[in-house]
Amino acid sequence: MCSSPLHQLAEQGQTGGAFWRELAQQLRVDSIRASAVPKSGHPTSSMSAAELMAVLISKYFRYDFDKPDARGNDHLIFSKGHASPLLYSMYKACGAISDDELLTFRSIGSRLEGHPSPVLPWVDVATGSLGQGLPIGLGVALAAKLEESPSRVWVLCGDSEMAEGSMWEALEHGAFYELDNLIAILDVNRLGQRGETMHGWDVSSYVRRAEAFGWAAIEIDGHDVDAVDRAYEAALSTLGRPTMIVARTIKGKGVKAVENREGWHGKPLEDPEAAIAELGGERTIAIDVSKPKPFEPDRFDTGLIELPRYDVGTEVATRKAYGDALVALGRGRGDVVALDGEVSNSSYADEFAKEIPERYFEMYVAEQQLLAAAVGLQARGWTPFASTFAAFLTRAYDFVRMAAYSRANIKLCGSHAGVSIGEDGPSQMALEDIAALRAVHGSTVLYPSDGNQTAKLVAAMADLEGISFLRTTRGATPVIYGPDEQFAIGGSKVVRSSDDDDVTIIGAGITLHEAVKAADALAKEGTNARVIDLYSVKPIDAATLHAAAEATQGRIVTVEDHWPESGIGEAVFSAFRDADERPRVDRRRARHPGFGQANGTARCSGYRCGAHRRGSAQARVKLGRSDTSSARSSRH
Amino acid sequence: MCSSPLHQLAEQGQTGGAFWRELAQQLRVDSIRASAVPKSGHPTSSMSAAELMAVLISKYFRYDFDKPDARGNDHLIFSKGHASPLLYSMYKACGAISDDELLTFRSIGSRLEGHPSPVLPWVDVATGSLGQGLPIGLGVALAAKLEESPSRVWVLCGDSEMAEGSMWEALEHGAFYELDNLIAILDVNRLGQRGETMHGWDVSSYVRRAEAFGWAAIEIDGHDVDAVDRAYEAALSTLGRPTMIVARTIKGKGVKAVENREGWHGKPLEDPEAAIAELGGERTIAIDVSKPKPFEPDRFDTGLIELPRYDVGTEVATRKAYGDALVALGRGRGDVVALDGEVSNSSYADEFAKEIPERYFEMYVAEQQLLAAAVGLQARGWTPFASTFAAFLTRAYDFVRMAAYSRANIKLCGSHAGVSIGEDGPSQMALEDIAALRAVHGSTVLYPSDGNQTAKLVAAMADLEGISFLRTTRGATPVIYGPDEQFAIGGSKVVRSSDDDDVTIIGAGITLHEAVKAADALAKEGTNARVIDLYSVKPIDAATLHAAAEATQGRIVTVEDHWPESGIGEAVFSAFRDADERPRVDRRRARHPGFGQANGTARCSGYRCGAHRRGSAQARVKLGRSDTSSARSSRH
Repeated sequence: MCSSPLHQLAEQGQTGGAFWRELAQQLRVDSIRASAVPKSGHPTSSMSAAELMAVLISKYFRYDFDKPDARGNDHLIFSKGHASPLLYSMYKACGAISDDELLTFRSIGSRLEGHPSPVLPWVDVATGSLGQGLPIGLGVALAAKLEESPSRVWVLCGDSEMAEGSMWEALEHGAFYELDNLIAILDVNRLGQRGETMHGWDVSSYVRRAEAFGWAAIEIDGHDVDAVDRAYEAALSTLGRPTMIVARTIKGKGVKAVENREGWHGKPLEDPEAAIAELGGERTIAIDVSKPKPFEPDRFDTGLIELPRYDVGTEVATRKAYGDALVALGRGRGDVVALDGEVSNSSYADEFAKEIPERYFEMYVAEQQLLAAAVGLQARGWTPFASTFAAFLTRAYDFVRMAAYSRANIKLCGSHAGVSIGEDGPSQMALEDIAALRAVHGSTVLYPSDGNQTAKLVAAMADLEGISFLRTTRGATPVIYGPDEQFAIGGSKVVRSSDDDDVTIIGAGITLHEAVKAADALAKEGTNARVIDLYSVKPIDAATLHAAAEATQGRIVTVEDHWPESGIGEAVFSAFRDADERPRVDRRRARHPGFGQANGTARCSGYRCGAHRRGSAQARVKLGRSDTSSARSSRH
Repeated sequence: MCSSPLHQLAEQGQTGGAFWRELAQQLRVDSIRASAVPKSGHPTSSMSAAELMAVLISKYFRYDFDKPDARGNDHLIFSKGHASPLLYSMYKACGAISDDELLTFRSIGSRLEGHPSPVLPWVDVATGSLGQGLPIGLGVALAAKLEESPSRVWVLCGDSEMAEGSMWEALEHGAFYELDNLIAILDVNRLGQRGETMHGWDVSSYVRRAEAFGWAAIEIDGHDVDAVDRAYEAALSTLGRPTMIVARTIKGKGVKAVENREGWHGKPLEDPEAAIAELGGERTIAIDVSKPKPFEPDRFDTGLIELPRYDVGTEVATRKAYGDALVALGRGRGDVVALDGEVSNSSYADEFAKEIPERYFEMYVAEQQLLAAAVGLQARGWTPFASTFAAFLTRAYDFVRMAAYSRANIKLCGSHAGVSIGEDGPSQMALEDIAALRAVHGSTVLYPSDGNQTAKLVAAMADLEGISFLRTTRGATPVIYGPDEQFAIGGSKVVRSSDDDDVTIIGAGITLHEAVKAADALAKEGTNARVIDLYSVKPIDAATLHAAAEATQGRIVTVEDHWPESGIGEAVFSAFRDADERPRVDRRRARHPGFGQANGTARCSGYRCGAHRRGSAQARVKLGRSDTSSARSSRH
């Protein structure tokens, strides 16, 4: 795609030592120039990988910059996202961005952010939190294999980030899934942010580890372009397993003032002009990146979606309904894939695994890789549903956070939420999940109470943008909605109401059923309770809440199965923050037997759970501004 | 400590194949009996490790059950916490609990929870989230080394949990810190929850990995008691590196109905009586666990704490004040240790590292290990401060969650919070941290605005119970409090007020200074604003907030630098949830340039930050129920 003057050097041939060395110097110079403008960025971390990237883009990388979605394109992920000046310098060399745009790095309005993000059409996912690019790249490689695509996934990794456990999760899964389309390029420049890494230049320590994990590993001098060339050649001819190219490099290579020196991480060079001169000045080499051969994957068939239907009055666990709906969705939509973290027989993702094994990925007990693989799969247009216990999604919270910046469309299901799981105890109980997931940018948080509702919400999730989270319950709950009822995202259901309601009780998921029981008990005492099913915790149905607050004189009780902060109660308060009338909200929470929820202080006795099943507590519910009334509000 | 009838068998000698095999059968029988009562638990996962534990407690484990805090005690951590029936059966064999108590397993009121927790005095930390016991054990081993204690740390690991990256973080750090007092016992029973593990019985795959990571590794048949004996002997004689004993075992060993069969994870046996008979019936072997030799570590000196003092009117970043205060605390208190995740030159933990290197632990870019090491260190009575970018604490959220169940006293510092960090971009900005940390049981969330306040809060954190979190800011902020001002946990400061305030503006950290600027601007327009410094976000100073709401006719504006959910605004709403008068709260948030905070929808442009510095926006602040007034509220 490059043309005119810049094109001439490339036409002399894009390969060979002299050319690559020149191109590498250009990438260094441009990294320094880009960082010099905002006086910010990571030029030295860019300079160490210049030869590695020069050889890659001029000979091996296959990419159509005009068609970033071409199915045969390779992928390039900067797991060491802070080397963004290098990536942007490569884009310039490839003609994707102009030199003027390069110099907008880190300035307001520029696409060239501090760390790469999909605001650029050629960037698949946001990086910058170390240890995420390789596991996400693994997900992309899984997608390419699923499509039988010739696409390769190149991931530039830093040596510092090898300390992240998530990298080793990726090594395990890369070997397990025999991903020979995945090539990790490890830039061992020895220096982290504050000093030397754990292994310094002991390059063989990485080789030993990678080989022990079942990868091919190639040790090279990362500044020897011929060695780099041979390594890529070898990686591409390696079958049945991924390759890690372990390159010994020098941070800040080429500029004596910073070369291999501590204290230069994340800093622009003090004298960029002198550095550029030392590197031989600016260059204008343009690269013609090879375009991939046309490739269109066979997609799986898409047809009618026949969601499961449950009879009102029967009981089904929402986790079971998730599994039933997921397999129905998978049958009907060829773009749907499923993943689980070794608990598929609990989350019921195993129904999908059994019926549609070709689109199911077992991620074992590696929740970070679970999330990362989902992000990678959606980067190639798949619609991933990833499940585990909701408690264990906290293990991957940083990946969820970053997925939002990746503009990723992923669907998460967390099962076994709340103290209602019983005897297994608090380690397995998600009590922080709503708080964590609500706080993710642009997220959707759903908490269904019955089987038919769950099925409808699962189907809706498939088309949602961003991060959506479905919280399911272990035990069976009554089916209260007919199979043809509709549930809008951002909606709610009023399940009990009259023209003369005294109080509003709000529940969701398993607590909705407790709210209904409380309303029944109140009715016997002559008190009318409006009951709202807040199945969509985010976005929240403020209009229905406001109407209920007005109808019930500002008396609201929420029924919760999580820690008090940022759960249903706070979500409800928030919906009134700037309303003209703001109700009094009384929270009734599931009691966590071991932590004395009632008075909020920790009590050191067993928290074995199951206690909640034993009955309901007489609870004094404060209603409205000054009224009080007595309600039998089940705590479970 | 065991006596009378049970004692007799032990007196015949606690070692030797026949004895160990009998003891192992007893542990199996008791695991089955314990699980049979609640019809719940993991007997088969217990049965695979029976010989491993029988040999350990009768010959190698040194522990005084009457003095769980004895400094010479060994530690035993069940990283595979679901094997709790085995642990409790061991406690019974050691005389720590009665047979009657054993049979209270998983019942209400019992100390014998589904997964082990420190409600039992002999359990250091809660487990049950896989992949945490080994990294926490590493922290305990670091503490023992620091004390020059003869204590050894034995960690029983499951093969499923080796898929967790956190285990490999522990392997890296165990070798790096040469922890020959750390022995991992890997129970390779081949079967996970839903089927075979990634490596099944390929025991050598674990050996290769462990060796590549620098550990001694010993492959054995885990049911061959003599092999187990030799392996422990070898582990104890290995110097300069930790040992992993990789034991091939059979899940459900000894009972044909479940032995090596899928579908029996986490389930009680169908016919416990028959199983017990098959195992040779109940036994009453009692073990005299060897007590450790008396040992009292030299503690580091504790003396006067001279906190840093900053002059009012100067500027200092709260992250710098954290570093200054931490080193002051370390000088004055010998129990304080510090850890950081390879960003100590940004978090300013490097001040401690330089001055008190013997009590500083570099955890590299491994945030899970960072948290786990802190939990391990506090288990032996140390007072750990662990720091990284607040954004990257999300990487260890599951460890924070579990630390609360461990009743751990750990102090976390998250730096570079909010969009105010500028050009590095969203991957480095903590915007979810307050939500995540508020939702942790019993947590304390602090967000200081100036240097002197930071210093006082750091000192206070040292004595706080539970999880405390300090959110620091990258840029320098004005010193507004004198060095002798006091700041109670759960308090707040009214920094502007009059007898005739029209509106309350609430900020914390960097946003307090924006709140003050807004108040100054309002004052010029003749509007009196009360400004509250909400430095203690949790617990929150409800009384001061209520008084302010009353004084300002229910008009409150919060100024925030995080995503809207569960931040300062929601914390403030919550303080009014059941108040007689509930104010209108208008949230003004730092604008995230890339995500169009103003209208809540994602806009795909750069989010380079720094934008906030450019000035303040004219914002229409809704005050009270029906009034509106115009305020110049800085958005930053």
